[in-house]
Amino acid sequence: MEYTIRDANAADMPHVLNLIKELASFEKEDHAVEVTVDDLVAAGYGAQALFHCFVAEADKAIVGMAVIYPRYSTWKGPVIHLEDLIVTEKMRGSGLGNALLKEVVKYGDRAGVKRISWEVLDWNEPAIQFYEKKGARVMRDWDVVQLNEEAMAHFLKNN
Amino acid sequence: MEYTIRDANAADMPHVLNLIKELASFEKEDHAVEVTVDDLVAAGYGAQALFHCFVAEADKAIVGMAVIYPRYSTWKGPVIHLEDLIVTEKMRGSGLGNALLKEVVKYGDRAGVKRISWEVLDWNEPAIQFYEKKGARVMRDWDVVQLNEEAMAHFLKNN
Repeated sequence: MEYTIRDANAADMPHVLNLIKELASFEKEDHAVEVTVDDLVAAGYGAQALFHCFVAEADKAIVGMAVIYPRYSTWKGPVIHLEDLIVTEKMRGSGLGNALLKEVVKYGDRAGVKRISWEVLDWNEPAIQFYEKKGARVMRDWDVVQLNEEAMAHFLKNN
Repeated sequence: MEYTIRDANAADMPHVLNLIKELASFEKEDHAVEVTVDDLVAAGYGAQALFHCFVAEADKAIVGMAVIYPRYSTWKGPVIHLEDLIVTEKMRGSGLGNALLKEVVKYGDRAGVKRISWEVLDWNEPAIQFYEKKGARVMRDWDVVQLNEEAMAHFLKNN
């Protein structure tokens, strides 16, 4: 199936949220998605954009997306973080994941960043194999740490 | 030893870089630090700040620091990322790590974020125990992935 990739706009956010929910379901975290379409529109298309989004379109439907934003490495300087790279199930194996990643890498290259980073579930072997084939380093000795809203409140109360 | 914590300014960046290098050495990555004092000053105190830095001062020396910046979670919305939390070796065990983390959590609380995230080496057990004691979740099933400058160039050439 033919597809085109372009910068997303606010009107795409309902479809982008559907893809976010599709991935969360795959990752067995259906109930973790708290953002709404309005949240995405405000964050991505307000006075100060908190992310940049690419969407892939096929047959007038949004079938894939990538969400990126800048980060700062105290070792390397400005870097780009890839928060999500999602291809809808029926489009898997079409080369779309590679095409979306290419847009992200081109964006980072134009911005002159030293690195693109993202996170992967260690049991998602197809994704890991794809990333490693593309030259990425899966750093299995680095773990992600999160202090959520409840833990933040608890910490402030007790420290 | 008494210490105070305050927002860093450009004049602190040489000392902040020393702490960055001290941690890189502990993490067996001495040569990975490519940023200079000028880079830190430009990134943190230029037209668009890429990070916010806290420093801890004791006896007129900078003995600790924390570097944070905003990220965007497509599940939760705006979050804060803690890029570095560094306490110089001679100050370990003084409670300074906790005090710096508290400043970060207070900052996140004021900003109304849903989460503070960071990354830890899986063999750094003292750090992991400290974070877990503070209520953080060390997500050992999530790995960090990086596509560095050379890999970006190689990818663009071959895709």
